[in-house]
Amino acid sequence: MLNYKRYRKNPVVVYPERQWPEKEIEKAPVWCSVDLRDGNQALIDPMIVSEKIEMFQYLIKLGFKEIEIGFPAASQIEYDFLRQLIERKMIPDDVCVQVLTQCREELIERTFESIEGCKKAIVHIYNSTSTLQRDVVFGMEKKEIIDIAVKGTQMVKERAARFPGEIILEYSPESFTGTELDFALEICTAVQETWGASKENPIIINLPSTVEMNTPNVYADQIEWMNRHFQNRESIILSVHPHNDRGTGVASAELAMLAGAERVEGTLFGNGERTGNVDILNIAYNMFSQGVDPELNIEKVNEIIEIYERCCKIPVHPRHPYAGKLVFTAFSGSHQDAINKGVRAMKERGSEHWQVPYLPIDPSDIGREYEPIVRINSQSGKGGVAFIMDTYFGFKLPKGMHREFADVIQAISEAKGEVSPDEIMQAFREEYLQKKEPIHFRRLRVDDLSGETRSEFDTRVLVKYTNRGAEKAFEAVGNGPIDAVQRGLQVELGARIKILDYEEHALQSGSNSQAAAYIHLLDSDSGKVTYGVGVSSNITRASVRAIFSAVNRLGLGER
Amino acid sequence: MLNYKRYRKNPVVVYPERQWPEKEIEKAPVWCSVDLRDGNQALIDPMIVSEKIEMFQYLIKLGFKEIEIGFPAASQIEYDFLRQLIERKMIPDDVCVQVLTQCREELIERTFESIEGCKKAIVHIYNSTSTLQRDVVFGMEKKEIIDIAVKGTQMVKERAARFPGEIILEYSPESFTGTELDFALEICTAVQETWGASKENPIIINLPSTVEMNTPNVYADQIEWMNRHFQNRESIILSVHPHNDRGTGVASAELAMLAGAERVEGTLFGNGERTGNVDILNIAYNMFSQGVDPELNIEKVNEIIEIYERCCKIPVHPRHPYAGKLVFTAFSGSHQDAINKGVRAMKERGSEHWQVPYLPIDPSDIGREYEPIVRINSQSGKGGVAFIMDTYFGFKLPKGMHREFADVIQAISEAKGEVSPDEIMQAFREEYLQKKEPIHFRRLRVDDLSGETRSEFDTRVLVKYTNRGAEKAFEAVGNGPIDAVQRGLQVELGARIKILDYEEHALQSGSNSQAAAYIHLLDSDSGKVTYGVGVSSNITRASVRAIFSAVNRLGLGER
Repeated sequence: MLNYKRYRKNPVVVYPERQWPEKEIEKAPVWCSVDLRDGNQALIDPMIVSEKIEMFQYLIKLGFKEIEIGFPAASQIEYDFLRQLIERKMIPDDVCVQVLTQCREELIERTFESIEGCKKAIVHIYNSTSTLQRDVVFGMEKKEIIDIAVKGTQMVKERAARFPGEIILEYSPESFTGTELDFALEICTAVQETWGASKENPIIINLPSTVEMNTPNVYADQIEWMNRHFQNRESIILSVHPHNDRGTGVASAELAMLAGAERVEGTLFGNGERTGNVDILNIAYNMFSQGVDPELNIEKVNEIIEIYERCCKIPVHPRHPYAGKLVFTAFSGSHQDAINKGVRAMKERGSEHWQVPYLPIDPSDIGREYEPIVRINSQSGKGGVAFIMDTYFGFKLPKGMHREFADVIQAISEAKGEVSPDEIMQAFREEYLQKKEPIHFRRLRVDDLSGETRSEFDTRVLVKYTNRGAEKAFEAVGNGPIDAVQRGLQVELGARIKILDYEEHALQSGSNSQAAAYIHLLDSDSGKVTYGVGVSSNITRASVRAIFSAVNRLGLGER
Repeated sequence: MLNYKRYRKNPVVVYPERQWPEKEIEKAPVWCSVDLRDGNQALIDPMIVSEKIEMFQYLIKLGFKEIEIGFPAASQIEYDFLRQLIERKMIPDDVCVQVLTQCREELIERTFESIEGCKKAIVHIYNSTSTLQRDVVFGMEKKEIIDIAVKGTQMVKERAARFPGEIILEYSPESFTGTELDFALEICTAVQETWGASKENPIIINLPSTVEMNTPNVYADQIEWMNRHFQNRESIILSVHPHNDRGTGVASAELAMLAGAERVEGTLFGNGERTGNVDILNIAYNMFSQGVDPELNIEKVNEIIEIYERCCKIPVHPRHPYAGKLVFTAFSGSHQDAINKGVRAMKERGSEHWQVPYLPIDPSDIGREYEPIVRINSQSGKGGVAFIMDTYFGFKLPKGMHREFADVIQAISEAKGEVSPDEIMQAFREEYLQKKEPIHFRRLRVDDLSGETRSEFDTRVLVKYTNRGAEKAFEAVGNGPIDAVQRGLQVELGARIKILDYEEHALQSGSNSQAAAYIHLLDSDSGKVTYGVGVSSNITRASVRAIFSAVNRLGLGER
């Protein structure tokens, strides 16, 4: 029996004045990476120094301007790492490191030692403010909790005055989501005033969902309530630090941004303690997919994955938004078909904007290949196979041909599981392009008879071919080379064949490109139909090859 | 360069009348599992029949009453599987199977063949209604799209009238999130009226976020708009089917429930095409964590994981909410300390409700062990080690001892990485309990002198011990046995030792239980302090052992 009675509802905010549901995300927040803190301290195998340096440099490359290093006063490893960054001059002028510390004299002292030589740094102090932690962890009254924060602020302020570089103060009422809003406002305001925050010298007030405790709209209500109750609001940079205990970290961050958050702390792929921090990449790609510049250089998702997985030893899940191996796949036939049509419509219309069913973004915009979009297995439909042939190999199969060729592939996939694009192309070659037995087209001469003859036909062809290796030839006339070849083959094979349809297209751009020709052929005696395909840089030769391909597929050359 | 200009904002709903942000989730929705459809068709290796049967039976065990089987009219495998369920009478009376089909005559015909023998079934028809799909996939006007749905409804209605069992109709305007709301309402209403839905014979109207296109509040607005615009609302069961393209599927479902959704379609762990469907377990555990009965039997999460991973061949991510391997861990010292204090406070107060910092739920309530809660590595603090000693082994180390023993463990973890509870206990034994060289306590006699002496001391001890193996003994008096042993040892060892603190507690309940004694000992000559620990079923012997342990740790026996 599930013991749900052991739990209680966390309180919501009664706040009918809320305005965030009317808002939209219009611009990127200030991003602060905490990968080197949370990511590190939450790993079974913490990063070694060379990995920390690689991650730090990569975060800069991604465009992060604020990067938390960790807790140098409490961890010798993090202290040494930060000293190395500073002494080796690895922090660019436009990047600000952030250091976390509790509000204790010796820790703050040591924290300032750790940042010596920084031109600019964010000193991030915190203490826990929730009703639960006040009660069971600290056993303190509200006033004592405020004292901790105010004294910490004073200690930072004194040292900041003597520090040669610029110090920005960040204060987090840790476990904010479990804190009464009026008390959170009171403690933040006390810190804000103690610091002497102003528009020119703003303070970062960071409101973490240290533990996700409710649906994300409640977090948004809490953020908007704070946002609108702060005095001297222009002296505050309002920051959020969402976690993901309820699986709604991204939503919490996004709704908090609607509610007024200007800054987001999080990690790549949501690494961090327990269920992790909010996934900054997810939010950024969400913005990107809506045409909003996320102000991060995230166009190479595979590279980000590679570095992340190597440094953190945590995998990216196959269904992780934008990054997972399976997220640009479509197994279902109707989805594949719709994607196929959407891509085609975009091309035909020269659309400026990406609009394809089931694919919120073009994978190639973030460095993913088209390759994995359509995986062909026994549950796939004809659309997927046609899409692969077009996207990978440039063959735009006539619509009527989709089913015929998909059946070929389905037989393969039923036998062996998933079929790769190369295997699909190999099957296409065997079934169509190399269908050269028993009759094998060799040479063609086409004579234009117009003006020379009183016949109804103006084209004469001379075709050399082999039948089971024996050299053969025929001459025939028609109202074009295809017509003439068809007529000639009828006589040669004694078969009543009829070309039902014909399509041809260039395989590449440029006049010297190869062409692909598709012939839909009916054998009137048996009633059977099939497609044949031929390729040549000569469009006539391509179509004759297609006819031969179809004839062989119908088994007519056997006679 | 990130090509964000290629994308446009998806429209939001202007709907200031919205009421969902004021609501709370009060009760479980009707859950419908689509694991056998989406899960299956979205896998590289689709489930084989034995796995489908296992999954079906397990879904029933979990408490699902509505289970979609898939698309039997389009897939012979799914057809055969459903026939097997019916013919082998594997569908309990209180479970309703659901079958999906497009609105085409031959498919609907075949769908009804597939459910022959069912007492009750949901026939789920759909067609795509979004502006994009109408344009690029179907090239149809709104009226034609409505016609498809209405004709499909008529076809189901005709067959349902002749069907011996009960048929419930479900209609999905597929790609609802990309559909104009008034058009979605129009097509749903047309289906509702054609079906003749009534309070007694309601229709399921399912509004999918086939592709997540916006922040979850927009989906909630869309659902509430529909909810409030439907005529004859009591004839409708309002269902949602959220996807997870933006990583906000769970939030979308939850806000949609606030907005009026009464039914949720999804899968275990969010399996499904691309980024997957919404994770029903995640929503259910969220409800559970707020004291709301999710009406699913999900108290054994490890079992669910085992069956899911085996059937679907997709891993559950280590940070997956409630289920991931790492989600009940706390590496950080301050978190471990707070968890430790929270658990202790609950025990001391006999709390009925779970309230522990950083742990939204008690892992043991869902069949997880306490074991993985606290992992000890080189980044861990003293709180974690103390927690392990308490939770696993019952040793409630005095607060002042946490640092001393944590340093021992940190030295080990810096050398070898993560340290297991057993390794921590082993170190505890070596450092304290088995610290028996050079002096080894052997026997104790305690005489109560009260009334017998005029001395200030009323206790005499006779202690037998060995020093480097040589048998020794001393007699001493004090105002209690500990005092007497201390005084005796001072003389024996020629050392000025002082007992700073003393704690003792039972290791188990019951009067014959073993006791653990902790002595905080100062060597006044060197100024060094340490703890010593002793265990015995005799509390006096335990404390004498603790003194000997401390003396040896201070190296005093060496003299």
